[in-house]
Amino acid sequence: MGGSRAARSLEPTDGPLTFEELQLAGRNRGMPLEALRYDLTPTGLHYLLAHWDIPAVEPDGWRLRVDGLVGSRVELTLEEIRARPRLSLPVTLECAGNGRARLRPRPVSQPWLLEAIGTAEWTGTPLRLLLEEVGIGPGATEVVFTGVDRGIQGGEEQGYARSLRLADALRSEVLLAYEMNGEPLQPQHGFPLRLVVPGWYGMASVKWLASIELVAEPFLGFQQEEAYRYQRDAADPGSAVTRMRPRALMIPPGIPDFYTRRRFLGAGPIDLEGRAWSGHGDVVRVEVGVDGRWSEATLDRPVGQFAWRRWACTWEATVGAHELSCRATDAGGNVQPVEQPWNYQGMGNNLVQRVAVTVR
Amino acid sequence: MGGSRAARSLEPTDGPLTFEELQLAGRNRGMPLEALRYDLTPTGLHYLLAHWDIPAVEPDGWRLRVDGLVGSRVELTLEEIRARPRLSLPVTLECAGNGRARLRPRPVSQPWLLEAIGTAEWTGTPLRLLLEEVGIGPGATEVVFTGVDRGIQGGEEQGYARSLRLADALRSEVLLAYEMNGEPLQPQHGFPLRLVVPGWYGMASVKWLASIELVAEPFLGFQQEEAYRYQRDAADPGSAVTRMRPRALMIPPGIPDFYTRRRFLGAGPIDLEGRAWSGHGDVVRVEVGVDGRWSEATLDRPVGQFAWRRWACTWEATVGAHELSCRATDAGGNVQPVEQPWNYQGMGNNLVQRVAVTVR
Repeated sequence: MGGSRAARSLEPTDGPLTFEELQLAGRNRGMPLEALRYDLTPTGLHYLLAHWDIPAVEPDGWRLRVDGLVGSRVELTLEEIRARPRLSLPVTLECAGNGRARLRPRPVSQPWLLEAIGTAEWTGTPLRLLLEEVGIGPGATEVVFTGVDRGIQGGEEQGYARSLRLADALRSEVLLAYEMNGEPLQPQHGFPLRLVVPGWYGMASVKWLASIELVAEPFLGFQQEEAYRYQRDAADPGSAVTRMRPRALMIPPGIPDFYTRRRFLGAGPIDLEGRAWSGHGDVVRVEVGVDGRWSEATLDRPVGQFAWRRWACTWEATVGAHELSCRATDAGGNVQPVEQPWNYQGMGNNLVQRVAVTVR
Repeated sequence: MGGSRAARSLEPTDGPLTFEELQLAGRNRGMPLEALRYDLTPTGLHYLLAHWDIPAVEPDGWRLRVDGLVGSRVELTLEEIRARPRLSLPVTLECAGNGRARLRPRPVSQPWLLEAIGTAEWTGTPLRLLLEEVGIGPGATEVVFTGVDRGIQGGEEQGYARSLRLADALRSEVLLAYEMNGEPLQPQHGFPLRLVVPGWYGMASVKWLASIELVAEPFLGFQQEEAYRYQRDAADPGSAVTRMRPRALMIPPGIPDFYTRRRFLGAGPIDLEGRAWSGHGDVVRVEVGVDGRWSEATLDRPVGQFAWRRWACTWEATVGAHELSCRATDAGGNVQPVEQPWNYQGMGNNLVQRVAVTVR
């Protein structure tokens, strides 16, 4: 599988941001961190990454094709999917590349800092029920999801396609979603239908679904075997990016300077708050750091089994320059690192956030 | 007025993008150009610029204060404003800094390329009716609009505030808007109430309105007299940025490469299309350039008196590398330039778009 990796992208760099990275940042959208105040992110503030163009899908002509190793192939209209059993779940989604542009050297791709996150209530029909209905054929081991979006990456023309192993696809929380926050999907979030895989980084939640195929062999598409890998270097086959690593983020306190985004606030007790999540189990602990000294934050109940939870604490701010940070620990004992977890593609960088503030 | 300009910002540069510019690009949001396909931009795809943080406004405690040189000061609740005469208008809004990052040397601020645009249907009550009702006092010459958002810019702590001369404020299309595309404003678009000034660049359409004040003297606030000026250099007092210059944009044809965004398509007849607008009157002509040779596009009716109009043409694509472009002319005879209209702050850069394509 390592054969075509050389063609994929530029080498990581200590150099300045490229024009191409700026173009990507101008198209893809982060969630400004003050929006951590909302249990559910307003739809227009949720993060957004599209590899190529946002496609225009006419719902009348659109069908979801389910085929491969199934008992009976089907093609479903949106109305037929909407008529099936319905489930709503609040789900925190994060781009696997979140934090990439904070790595040194910097993998060159969409240059996320910290904002590639959001939590929405997704409504759809459980994938499991559909797969059971069409019948899972003998020998099926994976499910391949393909979107209608199309483009070129790593020198290869392709439609966006990802697979899940059958056991992951059959988890009861995996949705074929047609609503976000109680409204039909906006075009940029996958209209008319997308996959939502709670707990996983966003690349698994394929947008603009065209087909679902059951297969017997591991899927070797570009977005599975080339992109979204934890690699040491270009030659390393690496391992697949799957579930979200634990992360806590803070609403930067005080008021910002327009250009530097440095924060300014007055001395005295300051309420600090944010959100924390993990794809490996509940967040069980959030610590807040002030100039490197850590203390415990209190935790609210999670917004849902697969969604972030609010944390809060009070800081007695004293005049001067300070660095605030926060870090999450999940039920699996995973803790956010204070040293960068570098890898070649810039995946899963859950290095702790640092917020520079001036108290005056 | 020129006194504090030296403190405002960095000098324009031919150097690489800064970390601070990346931070701004990660917060503010452009409209991917394929969304030019929509008459009305889906709310979550409309461009967005916030100087500081998106404020959290509780509608119950919020009041709009109208005071200064008025017959009677008032404070209005959102319900009282919603009960007033109602007007809906499709309006194209563009950030005055759109195109800034394409200038050489590059003014250092939010690094927009071409995406700081959008068209929405805004619903609200005409400002004129409210001003007439409270009574315009003798001597009033300007109306000052202040938002609840607060931060630091150019070394100065401030709330966002802009003025309109009385004659501009009394134009019948100026709205106090509480709905966007038929829904209450999302927080990032100015909830609960914003000004919408059709035809003007976006800085005039003050979000998160807190107060409206009638005054006798020209307003000298930072966002009026320091920012949003067409200046030659830091010492030049310059002239105020007001209405949108004409611009045409094209949906980039074919499919993109993920990283370079270069476009690829097959030979043969290709439908090119986009949108064009101007704040100085109707767009009366759009030309499409192929490798520097210009021909006429056809124009649809405008989406509204203050909104963009669709243009289209067919291109017989031949194998090879090509550069496509488009340019608009408005009823005032204003034409988009093919050489950059450079200025110190990077305002109103309506240089023609250029799209690199490979036909294979």
